[in-house]
Amino acid sequence: MNAPVPAAQLLPEVRLRNVPQALIDALKGRFGERCSTALAVREQHGRDESAYTTVPPPSAVVFAESTQDVADAVRLASQYEVPVIPFGVGSSLEGHLLAIQGGISIDVSRMNQVLAVNPEDLTVTVQPGVTRKQLNEEIKSTGLFFPIDPGADASLGGMSATRASGTNAVRYGTMRENVLGLEVVTASGEVIRTGTRAKKSSAGYDLTRLFVGSEGTLGVMTEITLKLYPLPEAISAAICSFPSIEAAVRTTIQIIQMGIPIARVELIDAHTVRMVNAYAKLGLRQEPMLLMEFHGSPAGVQEQAETVQEIAREHGGQAFEWAVTPEERTRLWTARHNAYFAAIQSKPGCRAISTDTCVPISRLADCLLDSVAEADASGIPYFLVGHVGDGNFHFGYLIDPAQPEEYAKAEELNHALVHRALKLGGTCTGEHGVGMHKMDFLREEAGAGAVDMMRTIKRALDPKNIMNPGKIFAL
Amino acid sequence: MNAPVPAAQLLPEVRLRNVPQALIDALKGRFGERCSTALAVREQHGRDESAYTTVPPPSAVVFAESTQDVADAVRLASQYEVPVIPFGVGSSLEGHLLAIQGGISIDVSRMNQVLAVNPEDLTVTVQPGVTRKQLNEEIKSTGLFFPIDPGADASLGGMSATRASGTNAVRYGTMRENVLGLEVVTASGEVIRTGTRAKKSSAGYDLTRLFVGSEGTLGVMTEITLKLYPLPEAISAAICSFPSIEAAVRTTIQIIQMGIPIARVELIDAHTVRMVNAYAKLGLRQEPMLLMEFHGSPAGVQEQAETVQEIAREHGGQAFEWAVTPEERTRLWTARHNAYFAAIQSKPGCRAISTDTCVPISRLADCLLDSVAEADASGIPYFLVGHVGDGNFHFGYLIDPAQPEEYAKAEELNHALVHRALKLGGTCTGEHGVGMHKMDFLREEAGAGAVDMMRTIKRALDPKNIMNPGKIFAL
Repeated sequence: MNAPVPAAQLLPEVRLRNVPQALIDALKGRFGERCSTALAVREQHGRDESAYTTVPPPSAVVFAESTQDVADAVRLASQYEVPVIPFGVGSSLEGHLLAIQGGISIDVSRMNQVLAVNPEDLTVTVQPGVTRKQLNEEIKSTGLFFPIDPGADASLGGMSATRASGTNAVRYGTMRENVLGLEVVTASGEVIRTGTRAKKSSAGYDLTRLFVGSEGTLGVMTEITLKLYPLPEAISAAICSFPSIEAAVRTTIQIIQMGIPIARVELIDAHTVRMVNAYAKLGLRQEPMLLMEFHGSPAGVQEQAETVQEIAREHGGQAFEWAVTPEERTRLWTARHNAYFAAIQSKPGCRAISTDTCVPISRLADCLLDSVAEADASGIPYFLVGHVGDGNFHFGYLIDPAQPEEYAKAEELNHALVHRALKLGGTCTGEHGVGMHKMDFLREEAGAGAVDMMRTIKRALDPKNIMNPGKIFAL
Repeated sequence: MNAPVPAAQLLPEVRLRNVPQALIDALKGRFGERCSTALAVREQHGRDESAYTTVPPPSAVVFAESTQDVADAVRLASQYEVPVIPFGVGSSLEGHLLAIQGGISIDVSRMNQVLAVNPEDLTVTVQPGVTRKQLNEEIKSTGLFFPIDPGADASLGGMSATRASGTNAVRYGTMRENVLGLEVVTASGEVIRTGTRAKKSSAGYDLTRLFVGSEGTLGVMTEITLKLYPLPEAISAAICSFPSIEAAVRTTIQIIQMGIPIARVELIDAHTVRMVNAYAKLGLRQEPMLLMEFHGSPAGVQEQAETVQEIAREHGGQAFEWAVTPEERTRLWTARHNAYFAAIQSKPGCRAISTDTCVPISRLADCLLDSVAEADASGIPYFLVGHVGDGNFHFGYLIDPAQPEEYAKAEELNHALVHRALKLGGTCTGEHGVGMHKMDFLREEAGAGAVDMMRTIKRALDPKNIMNPGKIFAL
């Protein structure tokens, strides 16, 4: 959906490794038509939603339909020391899917079965190609739901690999908290299991959480066991406008500090409200806005809502609008869901460069307000949305891909923002991952020693460096 | 507090490695009197609360007072390839602290400073020797608390190392969910940091959670950043008696499945009630009992309590007794807190062998009832308590240490219980860790492939195998 960006300023070093014809032949022999070398298929698997679009595509795409398929493909790749890149729906944002060292793509989108629903234990086991919306559709009749909702209808494999989160994380946690166990094909093609369905365990190293967030660099996930939650008895949503971003943020900080179990609290700035109004004719006040949602018993939801309304009023919040029915809620959340598309349409032909810092909640105002001032001064149009209850927010700088200086300015803004977030005790990525884009930031954030430790683990578990190499850290 | 058990049946292979006098001299040179080789000091550091008591003690104990102390001690040990065993308060249960391959103990109990309280972010950074009670005492004025409460007043370093939990985990999670970041001295004596104070992050491998639960085998934690929680506006506790363990367990299962955010739900069986009555003159009905606690707003607590009361009644629960004031609550919880001591006193000179399985909540009744039947049939007296909301419970088999056949019977019961739990999709250890006692169970639970992966990580991060060797897996 984004126009291409000139590659020159974007690319880290491309070091293509040899993909011998013998491997392609062996894959074709094993997988038949499920191993494709058609250019269109390869190109589709050689990009994601990141700004990197001109890395050469993988040499072949294997459409896996089972754990055995994945294991066989990885074993063959290992034999020839050829990189393997797992692919779900292609919605990652930091270059995770690109064949920066060449190799083959393993597409798991056909591994899309919900394998076991255990409503009485609030768990479900899925294949990695199941998307979050598909999962919630398939478990609807159980009265349970899976809360993690990144912007895209991502695959649960991809979400686990990037440690994704979204709007509900403030209440329900991220993929870190919600993956109970995994089946994984290791770099040698062996199949292992991590975790159990028990809610807690002290049984050895936490391999589950080592794989969650490892961005495909340690193995390919082939089964994922997740926590589910009872659908709340009552849900109530509200929007509230504020005289300033600061007032909206101060309201959020107080909500969190008081321990109110709010389910969602999302910030939309006035620019974005304007764009959304133009796009979806919502007629919202063109002021910074919080979108909130409360889950619980009817009385509990009402109590939370009243407390929050009081806090908001103290900070100048007004024009509270409430929604209780699903239809009303959908209308309110339209503003949030359409933010990206509305922004893109506001500047025809543009591309959005997204930031992803996350800071301790008390530093949110500092981090956000200075960054807004910088973005305003730059002249680059932007939209601003945020999972502010977690201290996480996204600027989308809207740049003209034909104007390299706009891209450079957006990157400068992002650099300044990341450095600010790190100085405030935060992280360069709250939920998108490191990929190729944030390797330098990671080193700055974690320190050379910690990144070296990651690299040591990678070398030990993947001595041929075939699992999605060149992501998270240089290797 | 426990009498010694004959070692012959208990011990895995002792393979003492050489501790050269040159290392002892170097440590004495660096630490002076803070390096002790007195037998009494070494013996105190060569055991924990496990059944293993006759492994030779470490050759020296270093009392570290700073990160630099730990780093220097580890560097010296690394130079001589001598094992290093971190020591907090010595309350671990599975042989974690024993110098099974010889070596030196690094006692971090003097590293007991609360370094930074950030009430506005609900975080705190502590040194590893701070105990959980000390922490809560020191942060009392902030209106916040740290909920994780294993039986002992353990050190936060030890709790992190074993991925501990306790009675509040059903609501607040375990150390897995509550450690945000660490400072760690690695096996080479380098100091690294993991995580940030941001609530979530997708920045690279989750080293924090790799160290949490690694039982000192990958490094020594020197700083720990933890999540804190606002003290609930209202707290209400209740006890309720049931006609059978099954009725109590079915009540628990339904509470969890309905998503009621209960803060504590602990089972005590009739044996234990009898022992506690005898010990503390509580006059409780000698029936299985649930102890519960509700946290929230006054209205929320009342709503939860009413729903739970209704569920309990449906399962035959009666004699609900409520406590709202801190004094009343303390009285009710006395039964739970005294269970261990009451049990030990019920059979003079006995020793308690504790189990620690955890199963998916729906399998809790199956797992528990069969194990109760087995324990009753064995003739070994026992007490039974459990964090049943998490599917986790502990039998304490009361054996006479002078009767090896009692120990053997207790171990048999534990074996049967663990196998049952694994078959039901559970884990061999919910919160105590693997140590030396559960290495075979771990292999059975996780599979050889996953344990090999743990071993590979250990070898990569600690090539000289000096960090608490011989724990979790054989190496």
